[in-house]
Amino acid sequence: MSTATTTDRILTGDRPTGPLHLGHYFGTLQNRVRLQNEGVDLFLVIPDYQVLTDRDVAERLTENVEDVVLDYLGAGVDPTRSTVFTHSAIPALNQLLLPFLSLVSAAELSRNPTVKDEIAHSRQAAVSGLMFTYPAHQAADILFCKANLVPVGKDQVPHLELTRTIARRFNERYGPVFPEPRTLLSNAPLLLGTDGTKMSKSRSNSIALKASSDETARLIRSAKTDTIREISYDPEHRPEVSNLVLLAALCQGRDPHEVASAIGDGGSAALKATVTEAVNTHFAPLRARRAEYAQDMAYVRKLIAEGNERANEIAETTLDEVRKAMGTFRMP
Amino acid sequence: MSTATTTDRILTGDRPTGPLHLGHYFGTLQNRVRLQNEGVDLFLVIPDYQVLTDRDVAERLTENVEDVVLDYLGAGVDPTRSTVFTHSAIPALNQLLLPFLSLVSAAELSRNPTVKDEIAHSRQAAVSGLMFTYPAHQAADILFCKANLVPVGKDQVPHLELTRTIARRFNERYGPVFPEPRTLLSNAPLLLGTDGTKMSKSRSNSIALKASSDETARLIRSAKTDTIREISYDPEHRPEVSNLVLLAALCQGRDPHEVASAIGDGGSAALKATVTEAVNTHFAPLRARRAEYAQDMAYVRKLIAEGNERANEIAETTLDEVRKAMGTFRMP
Repeated sequence: MSTATTTDRILTGDRPTGPLHLGHYFGTLQNRVRLQNEGVDLFLVIPDYQVLTDRDVAERLTENVEDVVLDYLGAGVDPTRSTVFTHSAIPALNQLLLPFLSLVSAAELSRNPTVKDEIAHSRQAAVSGLMFTYPAHQAADILFCKANLVPVGKDQVPHLELTRTIARRFNERYGPVFPEPRTLLSNAPLLLGTDGTKMSKSRSNSIALKASSDETARLIRSAKTDTIREISYDPEHRPEVSNLVLLAALCQGRDPHEVASAIGDGGSAALKATVTEAVNTHFAPLRARRAEYAQDMAYVRKLIAEGNERANEIAETTLDEVRKAMGTFRMP
Repeated sequence: MSTATTTDRILTGDRPTGPLHLGHYFGTLQNRVRLQNEGVDLFLVIPDYQVLTDRDVAERLTENVEDVVLDYLGAGVDPTRSTVFTHSAIPALNQLLLPFLSLVSAAELSRNPTVKDEIAHSRQAAVSGLMFTYPAHQAADILFCKANLVPVGKDQVPHLELTRTIARRFNERYGPVFPEPRTLLSNAPLLLGTDGTKMSKSRSNSIALKASSDETARLIRSAKTDTIREISYDPEHRPEVSNLVLLAALCQGRDPHEVASAIGDGGSAALKATVTEAVNTHFAPLRARRAEYAQDMAYVRKLIAEGNERANEIAETTLDEVRKAMGTFRMP
């Protein structure tokens, strides 16, 4: 990751489409918690409105939001320091969508890589209006709290461009209100699924953060490997085996080559035993913390409500500044 | 106009781009007041967010909103019976934009005649995101208060189609919440500007409702006519003269042919004298009432605040129903 300091505010988040998995954890979540613990001001949005194109998903939405929040809490997100909130509960944030939509053209929205990604992720045939306007909503997520840093993967840098454009155009037209946020580039290695393709819940190749030790063992046992007994770390030629090696290495904080050497000619069985042991050991405290929170969902819901309240207050303040700058009609 | 009954709720409104003119009055405003007085529940939206694509307009926005409200009050809109509100002050209405955007495709938005109109009205080169999503916002205006009738001109019937689609799709997907509103077709004759083209503030060919008697006289004196002394009502062959005849007829509640015969061969001078007299007589009480309200802007602002409050309460109730129907994440 690029550097962040204690004066930075970071905005990031996760779609509430189900429990987070190890790919989320090693890709971003672990690093967010590190940044939080270093004193960076962390905002985590759960964009619940953005999954509304799908009836089935909408039906499990409350459960899904709570699952993501439990994963955050388990992973070490501290609700007294960081702000977790859901889109649908922040009216003032959603209000920003309207002035922001006035600052971009329909053509710019359609060219945005986020929209292209949304289209790719979507199971819908047509691009919905909600999907089409997602970049403006994303800008509202980032700018309502004046976040100046947004963590992104290497392929996501262009995603932030429209947010920067909206901030710049607003400031030019109406006066300085918003920072132009920078990308915080992740250098986390890409963890693949148990079948050697991108880890994704929809491909059933992912290990959930909240999986039990037994589930974890079963999933790793079913992971794809090859027939070469000597274990090595060679992502290009042995992607499936190397991915398992990488997973063990990430859990143990070791170099993957070292992990591979230690297994030596134990073959897939030894590799899988090592990985299972590594995952279950590393995630044991996280899973225990998660289970503890899950015992008291009333408290978890109270934490979500508090995060939403805090986010709403900030959004109200920003919306007031926006209205003042724009000179929009004000009630007496 | 088609029929409306006391069980109907009508949603209509005016963009706050400046004072209303006689074209607005005879085209819709007069009829709205008649419907209100017959007991129809009238909602009038002033879509202040929709003019934000233009910095100059945004700067005069408060003044423009107040001008429209004064025109309403002058024309006989009764704030104790009808609800006048501004977009920007109704967060719960704007929240509906998000689920509604999820129910339509970007292609449907781009094909909507409202968007095509917006593009034609706009002085901007590119279609902004706000303009592009206008049909969904219009649906929120109409559906938040469950209006079942929307007054439209003959060429505007297709404008309501997307609102009906959104209501229908929402009900099909999540359960019955919204009526499918019908159009209330206006049969008001089209009043042209003083130059014989469409009456429009931007063409400087309009007479404002709030114009003084002297201004009215001056504007009518400068109106385009022809050199035939015998005055007749023949819109096809003598559009400018016939338009002035129509204006006098509308003010006096008479048939335009009768008005023309009464002027006979008096020529343009007699025609213009008749029209000036007719306009100033008809609008005298309206203008006096408007001036009286304008003396106490604190009271007018209080009326706007009360309308906004009422609209917000209704919008909150509808938004709750929407959330319940959709099963979106709820705070404890």
